[in-house]
Amino acid sequence: MTQAETWSGRFNEPVAELVKQYTGSIDFDCRLAPWDIQGSLAHAQMLCEAGVLSADDLAAIRQGMAEILADIEAGRLEWSLDLEDVHMNIERRLTDKIGDAGKRLHTGRSRNDQVATDIRLWLRDEISRIRSLIQALQSALLDLAEAHAEVVMPGFTHLQVAQPVSFGHHMLAYVEMLGRDDERMADCRRRVNRMPLGAAALAGTTFPIQRETTARLLGFEGICQNSLDAVSDRDFAIEFTAAASLLMIHLSRLSEELILWMSPRFGFIDIADRFCTGSSIMPQKKNPDVPELVRGKSGRVIGHLMGLITLMKSQPLAYNKDNQEDKEPLFDTVDTLVDTLRIYADMMRGVTVKPDNMRAAVLQGFATATDLADYLVKKGLPFRDSHEVVALAVRHADGQGVDLSDLPLAVLQGFSGLIGEDVYQVLTPEGSLNARNHLGGTAPEQVRAQAARWRKALQAAD
Amino acid sequence: MTQAETWSGRFNEPVAELVKQYTGSIDFDCRLAPWDIQGSLAHAQMLCEAGVLSADDLAAIRQGMAEILADIEAGRLEWSLDLEDVHMNIERRLTDKIGDAGKRLHTGRSRNDQVATDIRLWLRDEISRIRSLIQALQSALLDLAEAHAEVVMPGFTHLQVAQPVSFGHHMLAYVEMLGRDDERMADCRRRVNRMPLGAAALAGTTFPIQRETTARLLGFEGICQNSLDAVSDRDFAIEFTAAASLLMIHLSRLSEELILWMSPRFGFIDIADRFCTGSSIMPQKKNPDVPELVRGKSGRVIGHLMGLITLMKSQPLAYNKDNQEDKEPLFDTVDTLVDTLRIYADMMRGVTVKPDNMRAAVLQGFATATDLADYLVKKGLPFRDSHEVVALAVRHADGQGVDLSDLPLAVLQGFSGLIGEDVYQVLTPEGSLNARNHLGGTAPEQVRAQAARWRKALQAAD
Amino acid sequence: MTQAETWSGRFNEPVAELVKQYTGSIDFDCRLAPWDIQGSLAHAQMLCEAGVLSADDLAAIRQGMAEILADIEAGRLEWSLDLEDVHMNIERRLTDKIGDAGKRLHTGRSRNDQVATDIRLWLRDEISRIRSLIQALQSALLDLAEAHAEVVMPGFTHLQVAQPVSFGHHMLAYVEMLGRDDERMADCRRRVNRMPLGAAALAGTTFPIQRETTARLLGFEGICQNSLDAVSDRDFAIEFTAAASLLMIHLSRLSEELILWMSPRFGFIDIADRFCTGSSIMPQKKNPDVPELVRGKSGRVIGHLMGLITLMKSQPLAYNKDNQEDKEPLFDTVDTLVDTLRIYADMMRGVTVKPDNMRAAVLQGFATATDLADYLVKKGLPFRDSHEVVALAVRHADGQGVDLSDLPLAVLQGFSGLIGEDVYQVLTPEGSLNARNHLGGTAPEQVRAQAARWRKALQAAD
Amino acid sequence: MTQAETWSGRFNEPVAELVKQYTGSIDFDCRLAPWDIQGSLAHAQMLCEAGVLSADDLAAIRQGMAEILADIEAGRLEWSLDLEDVHMNIERRLTDKIGDAGKRLHTGRSRNDQVATDIRLWLRDEISRIRSLIQALQSALLDLAEAHAEVVMPGFTHLQVAQPVSFGHHMLAYVEMLGRDDERMADCRRRVNRMPLGAAALAGTTFPIQRETTARLLGFEGICQNSLDAVSDRDFAIEFTAAASLLMIHLSRLSEELILWMSPRFGFIDIADRFCTGSSIMPQKKNPDVPELVRGKSGRVIGHLMGLITLMKSQPLAYNKDNQEDKEPLFDTVDTLVDTLRIYADMMRGVTVKPDNMRAAVLQGFATATDLADYLVKKGLPFRDSHEVVALAVRHADGQGVDLSDLPLAVLQGFSGLIGEDVYQVLTPEGSLNARNHLGGTAPEQVRAQAARWRKALQAAD
Repeated sequence: MTQAETWSGRFNEPVAELVKQYTGSIDFDCRLAPWDIQGSLAHAQMLCEAGVLSADDLAAIRQGMAEILADIEAGRLEWSLDLEDVHMNIERRLTDKIGDAGKRLHTGRSRNDQVATDIRLWLRDEISRIRSLIQALQSALLDLAEAHAEVVMPGFTHLQVAQPVSFGHHMLAYVEMLGRDDERMADCRRRVNRMPLGAAALAGTTFPIQRETTARLLGFEGICQNSLDAVSDRDFAIEFTAAASLLMIHLSRLSEELILWMSPRFGFIDIADRFCTGSSIMPQKKNPDVPELVRGKSGRVIGHLMGLITLMKSQPLAYNKDNQEDKEPLFDTVDTLVDTLRIYADMMRGVTVKPDNMRAAVLQGFATATDLADYLVKKGLPFRDSHEVVALAVRHADGQGVDLSDLPLAVLQGFSGLIGEDVYQVLTPEGSLNARNHLGGTAPEQVRAQAARWRKALQAAD
Repeated sequence: MTQAETWSGRFNEPVAELVKQYTGSIDFDCRLAPWDIQGSLAHAQMLCEAGVLSADDLAAIRQGMAEILADIEAGRLEWSLDLEDVHMNIERRLTDKIGDAGKRLHTGRSRNDQVATDIRLWLRDEISRIRSLIQALQSALLDLAEAHAEVVMPGFTHLQVAQPVSFGHHMLAYVEMLGRDDERMADCRRRVNRMPLGAAALAGTTFPIQRETTARLLGFEGICQNSLDAVSDRDFAIEFTAAASLLMIHLSRLSEELILWMSPRFGFIDIADRFCTGSSIMPQKKNPDVPELVRGKSGRVIGHLMGLITLMKSQPLAYNKDNQEDKEPLFDTVDTLVDTLRIYADMMRGVTVKPDNMRAAVLQGFATATDLADYLVKKGLPFRDSHEVVALAVRHADGQGVDLSDLPLAVLQGFSGLIGEDVYQVLTPEGSLNARNHLGGTAPEQVRAQAARWRKALQAAD
Repeated sequence: MTQAETWSGRFNEPVAELVKQYTGSIDFDCRLAPWDIQGSLAHAQMLCEAGVLSADDLAAIRQGMAEILADIEAGRLEWSLDLEDVHMNIERRLTDKIGDAGKRLHTGRSRNDQVATDIRLWLRDEISRIRSLIQALQSALLDLAEAHAEVVMPGFTHLQVAQPVSFGHHMLAYVEMLGRDDERMADCRRRVNRMPLGAAALAGTTFPIQRETTARLLGFEGICQNSLDAVSDRDFAIEFTAAASLLMIHLSRLSEELILWMSPRFGFIDIADRFCTGSSIMPQKKNPDVPELVRGKSGRVIGHLMGLITLMKSQPLAYNKDNQEDKEPLFDTVDTLVDTLRIYADMMRGVTVKPDNMRAAVLQGFATATDLADYLVKKGLPFRDSHEVVALAVRHADGQGVDLSDLPLAVLQGFSGLIGEDVYQVLTPEGSLNARNHLGGTAPEQVRAQAARWRKALQAAD
Repeated sequence: MTQAETWSGRFNEPVAELVKQYTGSIDFDCRLAPWDIQGSLAHAQMLCEAGVLSADDLAAIRQGMAEILADIEAGRLEWSLDLEDVHMNIERRLTDKIGDAGKRLHTGRSRNDQVATDIRLWLRDEISRIRSLIQALQSALLDLAEAHAEVVMPGFTHLQVAQPVSFGHHMLAYVEMLGRDDERMADCRRRVNRMPLGAAALAGTTFPIQRETTARLLGFEGICQNSLDAVSDRDFAIEFTAAASLLMIHLSRLSEELILWMSPRFGFIDIADRFCTGSSIMPQKKNPDVPELVRGKSGRVIGHLMGLITLMKSQPLAYNKDNQEDKEPLFDTVDTLVDTLRIYADMMRGVTVKPDNMRAAVLQGFATATDLADYLVKKGLPFRDSHEVVALAVRHADGQGVDLSDLPLAVLQGFSGLIGEDVYQVLTPEGSLNARNHLGGTAPEQVRAQAARWRKALQAAD
C-alpha cells in the first residue's frame, strides 16, 4: 500500500472514493496555484536565509516552481483528486521534478498556515482590482452627472414627488455610496494583508523561522501575532463579503431606479439595445436585463455572507475542516463583483436621458410646495404655520386638478396675505433647484463642484 | 444582420459580448435539458390534440427531440452562449433538424412558463431522490440504535452530565429529526408538483390550450391557477431550501457530536480510517473530516436560502430577469444534500462505539441525582423539597470527590431519614435507564420498540 | 442563605445580579403564562390519574391556578426576576398559595419539556389566528378582483409593458400566494401540535406517566416519540418563521406594486388618506406609509428566521441555554404577522382603482404585439417567423411614435401579406384580454370563475 | 378637525387608529430624545448665526429644551402616539412651552435629515462605549494569559490533539480577535460620524444654512456631501451590525470552548457559581448559562444584520418609510453587545484553570509527534519522509496503547536510525512548548511578550 493510497503510514485503509470527492478541494482551489507558489518561494528563501534549507535546495525549488507555473499557464498541469488540494498537488509535482529538495519545502509550515496565506495573497490582489473597478464606475457616473447637471427631475421620497432635483445630483448620490464602498474595501484590505505564515499547524514551529523576512518578501503589511488565531481566523472573508454585500445593495438600488425609469410610464431614460434582450413570445419587448440581473445577484452575494457567518459560528479553535468551505463563496463573490462592476460602467455609458419626460413628471406632484412654505417663512410666518397654509393651498389646487403655479394670485392670497407677485418665481422647478445652493444641495452649481471634487479624488487614487 | 446577432428585428444593435456572458445561463441551465424536452413533448402533444399543431409536426418534433436527447447523452451537443439558455439552444437545434415544425413548437407558451415548468419537473425528481437518501440514512441510524440499545452513555444538557441515556436512544433522536425532514420534503414536493405551463408570458395565450391534458401527461398533481402567479412564483425554491437548511442543521448537530465524541477526552466513538484524513505536518493526526465538512456545508445551504429570499423580496409582478438567479443556488443545494446524505449513511456504518468510555463518563457527573430525588418523592417528600435535599447531598459528595452511590447509607440518611437500603439500586446507570420506561423514554425496551416502529414506517415508504 | 438567593443547596454563592438580568426571561416569557398554566393543569390531572398525585392535591392545584390566572388577567401578579422565568414564578406563587401540593406539581417533568410544551401550545393558537387573518386578507382581495374583473391594466414583465391583464386577475395572483401561505401554515401547525411533555429533562422520568392522557387533555395531534429530541427540537420555530418569511415576501411584492401604482407617473390607484401620512417639511406630501413599512418589516421577519437558524446550527443534544433565545424572535414574528395582516386587509378596502390611467398605460408599450403574432400563426406562419415579423412592425411603429393599431392596413401588410382587415380586433386591449380565456388565463370570465372558486374554498375553511 | 386629528390640512380624514399604532415609532425612538435635542440646539444656533432665527428665538429654544430634557430625565414627559415619533413629540412640547419660536425650529430641515442625524449621534457614542468594553474584556483575558503563560494544554485542530500550547497563548488568540473587532468599530465610527443635517427632505433647503457650523458644534468629523444620499444612507447601520456580528462570532467561539472545557470529560476549567444556574429537575446540575446564552445571542445579532440588509435591498432613492425599521435592530444590537461584553469580562475573571487535567489531556493524543518529525529533519531527513517515519511510529505506539515517549529507544530506532538518546527531551509537552519560540509562537516567553505588547496598546488607547 503506497502513500498515494492511504493518507499516511498511520492509517489502516485508504480514503473511500466518495470521501475523496467530498473532501477534495482541487476542483476549485487550483485557482490559488500562482499565489501558492508565490508563498512557497518566499518561505523557501526565508528557510534558506535562516539556515534551514541549503542554497542548492532553494535553487532547485525555484527552478521546479518556475516549470510548474509555466505548466499551469500552458494548461499542461493535470490536477489530481488523489492529491486532495492545490498544495499537495504542487508539492508532489515539485518532488517529482526535483526530488528531496521538494520534500524539504514543507519544513516549518503546515497546510493550515499555507492556505490562509494563499487566500490572503489572492484576495488582496482582487480587492485592488475591485477598487479600480469601483472607481471606473464612479467615473462613468461623474460623466453623466456633469453632462446632466441642469436636467431637472422629480426627487422622490416614498416614491411620491417631493422636490425637484438635478439628475446629475441623483447620479452623485451613487458616487458617494461607491466612495464608501471603496473606503470599506481599503479598510478591509489592510486587515487581509497580514501574514499567517509561520503559525504552522497552530502553535508555530521548532525551526528558527524569521517571519519578518517572509512578510517583507511577500509585501504583507503586518504579521498575525498569534499562531492559533492565524490559522483559524476567517474574519477577513466575512468582512470582505459584508463590504461586497453593501456594494451590491447600492447597485440593487440603482438598478431598481434604472428599471423604473425605463418603464414606459416613467420614460426617464433609455438603455442601449446592446444591454437589453427581448422576449421569446412578445415581439415588442426590450428588457433591461442587466440591471435586473444585478438586482438579483445582490441576493447571491448576501447569501455568501450569511453562509460564511454560519460557517464560523461556534467553531472551537484552531483549524477545522469546516473552513475549507470559505473558498467557493469568496471566489464567487469576487467574480460577481468584478463582472458586475465592469458591465455596469459600460451600461451607464449607454444610458440616454430624456429631460422632457423628467420635467413633465416634476409638474405632477406639487414639487415646489416646500418652496412656497419657505417663501412664507421668509415673509415672517413660523415654519409650522406656513406648512399648514401650503397644505390647504395644495388641497385646493389638487381639487382643481392644477399645479400651485396655476392658481391666480388672488386665490393664493386667500390662503395667506403674505403672498405677493414674486411667488411665481419660487414655484418653478428651476427656481427651486437653484435655490438649494449650499454644500450637498441639488443646485447645478453644487453638482458641478461635487463632480470636480470627485474627479480630483479619483485622479489622486490612480 | 441575422437574428443570431441581434435579439430580434426590433433591436438596432447586437447584444454586447460582456452582456451575453453576464446574462447567459446556458453554462448552468443545460442541466435542465432532459426536463425541458419532457415538457416540450407534452406541450406539443397537447397542441396537437387541441388542433393547433398537425400530427406531422408532432411526429417531427418527437423524432427531432429523440435525436437531441441522444446527442446530449452522448455528449455530442455543443451548447452555444449566443443562444443564451437551454430553451433557445434546444429549440434552435430542433429547427435545424426539422425545419418549420421546430418553429411552431413555441406556439402558446413563453420561456417564462417553460423555465418554471422545467425547474419544477427537475426538482420534484430530486426531492424524491433526497427522500430516499434521508430514509437510507435513517436506516443506518436504526442499525446503530438497535445494536446499542443497552449501551449507557451520559445524556447531556448544557454539555453537563444530566442523566444516563441509551446510545440507541440518542441515535433515535436523529431518526426523529430526519423523519420531520422527510415530512417537510413531502409537503414541499406537493407544492412543487403544480404546473405553470399555459401561463405563457404572464397572461395566458390566445390558443385553445388544454392545461389539464399537459398536466396529466407530465404527471403534475395540480395546475397553477393564475398565470401571473405561475410565472413569478419561486416559493417552491425558497420552501425547498428552507427544508434543506433544516436538514443540514440536523446534520450539523450530529456532526458536532461525532466530532466531540471522537475527541480523545470523550473517546466515545471511532470513525473508520476511510472517512478520515491526516495532517500535512502532524504525523499522528486522524481527523473527522467528513462531519466537519458537513457542519461547514450547513452554512452553504443556509446561504442559498438567504440568497433566494433576498432575490424575491420586493419584486413586482410578473417575471423579472432577477429570477434567473434561482437556479445555481437550487442546483448546489440539491447536490450538497445528495452528496452529504449519501456519505453520511456510509460513514455512520463506519462508526465504532466504545461503551466503556461512555459508562466511565456517566460516573463523572452525578447522573443519577434525579433518580434519588424521584426516590424521595415516592417516599412522600414533595418534589421541590426532595430536589433541595439531593442538591445538598451532591454538594457533599462533590466535596469528597465521590459519586452519590459511594456515600454510606448513614451519610445519605443524614440528608433525609426517608432513605433506605433500597436506594443503591436507583443510583446505578442501568437502574436509571430502565426506570424511564414510557413512551419516548430512554429505557432499552422503549428504544427497541421505537426502532421497530420506524423500520415498519420505512418499509411502508418504500 | 435561602434558595431565593442561591440556585440550590448545591451552589456556593448566589447568582450575580448582572447574570440574573442577562439570563432571566421573565420580561418576555410571562406572555406564555396562560399556556403554562394550561399545561400544568393537564400534567397534574394526568399525575392524579396515574396515582402519583392525590385528588386533594389536584383540587388544590386547580384552585390555586384559577386564582393565579385571575391575578394575571387583572394585572395583579408581579413577576419577579429573582425567579428567573414564567415557570418558576408561577410555581412559587402556587406554592405560596397552596403549600406542599404546589411543590409536588413539578413531579415527573422538567422546565425543558415544560417550556417546549408552552411554546407549542401558544404557537398553535397563534397559527390558527394567523390563518384566519390570511383568509380575511384573501377575502378583501377577492372583493377587489370581482369588482374590477373587467378593468384592463398593463401586465408587466421586467417592468416593461408585456400584455394587457385584468386588474382582478392581478389581485388573484396574490390570493394564490396567500393560499400557499395558508397551506404552509397548516402543514407547520401539524408539526407544532405534537407534545414534548413527558420528556422531562431529556430522558423521560421514573414516574408512571401516561403521555397519551396529557396529550388528549391538551388537544395535541401527536406525541414527540423521543425524549432527547423532544427537549432540543426547535424545528417548528424555524419552519414557522420560514413560512412567515414567505408570507412577508408576498406582501413585500404587493407593497412594492401599491407604492409604484400610487406614484403619480403610474397613477393606477389611490390609497385612502387614513392609511397615509404627510411630511414634516413638504406640505403637499401624502405617503403610502403602510405598504412601505410592510415592505420594510419583511426584513425584520427574515432576520428572525436567520437568527433562529444560526441559533440551532451545531448545537449538541439535548437542551442548551441557547434555546432560550427562541422566544423573542418568535413573539415578534407573530406580532408582526398579526398586525400586518390586519392592517393590510383594511387598507386594501381603502384602495381606489383608476381604470383610465391603467388603460392609458396599456397603450404605451405595444401590449398587443403577441396577439398579432398569434394572429399570424393562426393564418399559418410558424410562431418563430411570426415573432420576427411583428418585431419589425413594432420597430417601425416605435419609430413613428404610434401604436400597432394606428398603422394603416397597407403598412401592416407590408410586413406580412397574411394580415387582413380583421387584425384590428385582436389589437385592442379588450380583445387581447378576452382571448386568453382558459384555466388560469386573464379573461374576465376566468377571473370571475377563479374568484368564485376561492369564495367557496374560504367558506369551507370557516 | 384639528391638526392633531388629521396629518395636515391636505388630508381629508384622520389617520386610522390601527395605522397610528403600526406606523408610530415613539415607543422605541423616544430613546433618541437626548440626541434629538442636542441636534436641534446646534441647528438652532446655526440658524441664528445665519440670520434665519432671532437671538430671542434661540434663547427661548434653549430654555425650552433644557426644561424638556429635565422632564425626560425626571420621567415627567409623557410621549404621545398621536404625535408619531420623538421629533414631533419634542417639537410640540417645545411649542407648548415657548410658542412661535418652537414653530420656527424646523426651518431648513426635515425629519429625514433629523432622524439620520439623531441615530448617528447616538451610535457614535455607543460605539465609543462598546470599544471601551471590548478593551476591558481584552484586559481580563490578558490577566488570564499572563497568569497561565506556562500552563500547557492540548492545542486542537479538528478537535483532535494537535500540539501542546500554552493556555495563555490560547487566551491571546481571543485578544487578537477582539483587537480586530475594536479596529473595525473604529473604522465604522469614522463613517458613522458624518453629518446628514442640512440635506432637509432630500434636496437641501432654500435657507442660507452653514453646515460646517452645525457639524463643528456637534463634533462631526465629516459632512454628507450629497443630500439624496444623506437621507437614504443606512450603510452605517449595516456596517455596524456586520462588525457586531463578527464580535459575536468570536464570543460564540470562546463560549463554545468554555462550555466544552467545563464539561466533565474535559474538566479544563470551572466557572464560578455566580455565573451558573441549576436545573429545575436535576439537583446536581451546574450549567454554564452565560456562555451558552452568548452563543445563542450571536444568532440574534446576525439576524439583525440580515434584517437590515434585506431592508435596504432595492430601495429607490431617497427616503422611504421602510427605513424606520432600522432602529429596533440597531438598538437591540447595541444592548446585546453592551450587556454581553460587560458580563463576559466579569465571567472570565471567575474562571478557574485546572492545569492537571489539561496536562493529562496533552498526553492523550501524541501531541509531540511533530516535534519528533522536526527532530528527524534536523538530523537530515527531508520533512516529507520524516513525516512518514513518525506516522508509522505513532501507529505502533497507538497499537500498544502508549505515548511515543513511552517507547524504548531501541523501538524508536527501529523506525529511524537517526534517533538518539536526546529524543526524549523533544517529546515532553514543555519541551515542545518552549521550542516554538518565535513571533506568534506558543512558547511562554512569546506569550509574555505579546501580553506586554497588548498592555501597552490598551494603555495608549485609554
